[in-house]
Amino acid sequence: MADTTSMGSSVATDETSELIASNKVEGTTVYNRQGEHLGKVYNFMVNKRSGQVEYAVMSFGDFLGMGGSYHPLPWKALTYDPSQGGYVVDLDKRKLEGAPSYRTGEEPTFDRAYSQSLYDYYGLPYGVV
Amino acid sequence: MADTTSMGSSVATDETSELIASNKVEGTTVYNRQGEHLGKVYNFMVNKRSGQVEYAVMSFGDFLGMGGSYHPLPWKALTYDPSQGGYVVDLDKRKLEGAPSYRTGEEPTFDRAYSQSLYDYYGLPYGVV
Repeated sequence: MADTTSMGSSVATDETSELIASNKVEGTTVYNRQGEHLGKVYNFMVNKRSGQVEYAVMSFGDFLGMGGSYHPLPWKALTYDPSQGGYVVDLDKRKLEGAPSYRTGEEPTFDRAYSQSLYDYYGLPYGVV
Repeated sequence: MADTTSMGSSVATDETSELIASNKVEGTTVYNRQGEHLGKVYNFMVNKRSGQVEYAVMSFGDFLGMGGSYHPLPWKALTYDPSQGGYVVDLDKRKLEGAPSYRTGEEPTFDRAYSQSLYDYYGLPYGVV
């Protein structure tokens, strides 16, 4: 989450109706549709050439009793809910349980094939803005 | 800059040939074409809906003797140079001097008109990936 005091007025610098600052996305809490706290946004991956965000990486402390894990999610799977002050993931636990994920030290290779498999899992077209 | 020790193997998690992690972009040094240190990336602004990065905000400590200032730059104006370990801004000082910028506490409203003016200044089409 951004330190909103460091640049003066917060709304103008870290968020508008259209845009959000990268460092405000990081650390933001993630909820499921039932309002349960799942974890937070660890970071997100940007396509160097196009500047397109491919996916955000959620860190789930001990979600589902699986120990600390990282779940990459397509950007579009996250919806910001102002009333909760966090992102809502419109996925049930069953879907998340079977989703691509990894633990610290067991990261996959984040190549095109991995991105493709991620989008396939969530039923979203890869490479389409 | 990302703490690459916090997620185990660094290359796999914060950068690939195609992708770069948001928290690795932040804090990265920015140079001009002559190899002079200009400042660093403060953060970058992402379109909430599309996930498209609109611009990165450079913080220049005392660049040009103007005091601390922030210069938003279109994503495409930044090129990462592995040999320098930082971004190279392909702009001369004269262009940067006249560019849209602001100081802490004097932030403009980051609306569509501001984005448009920014892209216009750098001669890039706004809204085109």
